[in-house]
Amino acid sequence: MDAKKLREEIRNGSFTGSTSGAAGNKVQANLVILPKAYAFDFLLYAMRNKKAVPVIEVLEDGQTESRYADDSDIRTDIPKYNIYKDGVLTDTVDDISEYWQDDFVTFLIGCSFTFEQAILDEGLSIKHIDAGRNVAMYKTNIATDPAGVFSGELVVSMRPFDENAVETVTRVTEQFPEMHGGPVHYGDPREIGIKDIGHPEYGESIEIDEGELPVFWACGVTPQNAAVNAKPRVMITHAPGYMFVTDLENEDYRQK
Amino acid sequence: MDAKKLREEIRNGSFTGSTSGAAGNKVQANLVILPKAYAFDFLLYAMRNKKAVPVIEVLEDGQTESRYADDSDIRTDIPKYNIYKDGVLTDTVDDISEYWQDDFVTFLIGCSFTFEQAILDEGLSIKHIDAGRNVAMYKTNIATDPAGVFSGELVVSMRPFDENAVETVTRVTEQFPEMHGGPVHYGDPREIGIKDIGHPEYGESIEIDEGELPVFWACGVTPQNAAVNAKPRVMITHAPGYMFVTDLENEDYRQK
Repeated sequence: MDAKKLREEIRNGSFTGSTSGAAGNKVQANLVILPKAYAFDFLLYAMRNKKAVPVIEVLEDGQTESRYADDSDIRTDIPKYNIYKDGVLTDTVDDISEYWQDDFVTFLIGCSFTFEQAILDEGLSIKHIDAGRNVAMYKTNIATDPAGVFSGELVVSMRPFDENAVETVTRVTEQFPEMHGGPVHYGDPREIGIKDIGHPEYGESIEIDEGELPVFWACGVTPQNAAVNAKPRVMITHAPGYMFVTDLENEDYRQK
Repeated sequence: MDAKKLREEIRNGSFTGSTSGAAGNKVQANLVILPKAYAFDFLLYAMRNKKAVPVIEVLEDGQTESRYADDSDIRTDIPKYNIYKDGVLTDTVDDISEYWQDDFVTFLIGCSFTFEQAILDEGLSIKHIDAGRNVAMYKTNIATDPAGVFSGELVVSMRPFDENAVETVTRVTEQFPEMHGGPVHYGDPREIGIKDIGHPEYGESIEIDEGELPVFWACGVTPQNAAVNAKPRVMITHAPGYMFVTDLENEDYRQK
């Protein structure tokens, strides 16, 4: 579907599902909204942890339209938002207009949907997509580089691939350094502090079959985790899988 | 001279000159210090104008030692600082300890010294260096992408080269995208709004001889210009040519 039309349908409530696969080759973005008092610390945290927190765009306080999404409104154009108060999830809503504050700063952050499309374009399949599940995500023991009130462990997403395909998915995803880039690890989950691969902290589990290896990428949930640690008075994020659809092309983020 | 020893000599007052050529192949950095109230706007301005404002490091409020300069102190380790109040230069000093505020955030920004060394390594000479002058810098009519209170025109540095050398200096400086990268323009200065090439707004003028072309690069004075436009209550910068010497290697910033 056309990205602008999809945003309109989300806004008027006729599209309510996950945006996975709904917007062709358009870039979809993770969302973090914070009061301006936290904005410097968060932007610095992003800069210091680019692989996990690749900032595509910042909407300054007072702005609600993305420069990369024509006629958009960040308060209404995502199907599902999570509201956190003092670091605790308090509400999940489809419109944040009534929560909006004039001092809110919006961060749009690169999302793995971009590199997943590139993997699919190589003729490989991705198991959680085939199974209609959300990707499996885990906290690791890898510390991020803190900034101000933000700190915490790197969160990774995991996709199992045939061991012969690991080289290909590594090569392809490395071409998208601004969309989490290449894997941070593959193979034994315990090496990065994951004790139980069958029980992800976020998303849904997926089987790793004989001949497959788990491959791990830095994940856009990392900044949400850091923000929850920081316990900001209020924070709004997208709900996992329900993303902000921009007018940008995935392929424009591929570095050859 | 060893970078750490040079910083010590600057700190104890035995080295007081320009740092140009004083630190071998170590990265030297532009300095902007601002109260934290301006830090988000400034960091966003830098992010949106990477070519002019390539941030190497941010020292958060309360920090005075660079992680890239062993045993350093940002308040004493630069030979000459400029103090601005409400956008007006009020003092030039060799130590800012008495001006220091607990809410100061320090930005270290990439400097053209890095790519100049790479040009020299190609066997080319750079005229203002041979003449013992500061580089010529000009305001252009190219608007930067504003952020919060920061806005203004791009400031460029100019170096004349034989027209046969322009391709080489372009290729070499493009290898340093985090140190201003390749030229933004070469040839007719009027095309970027420079009316009188003989009278630079900053630094010193240099002759352009027969067979030479002026080549223009985005310049680290751009953020100083934007900060002066923003008229912050207080801002401290290095004085042009008197830089912060880090322990980083210039060559580590070359992208092959």
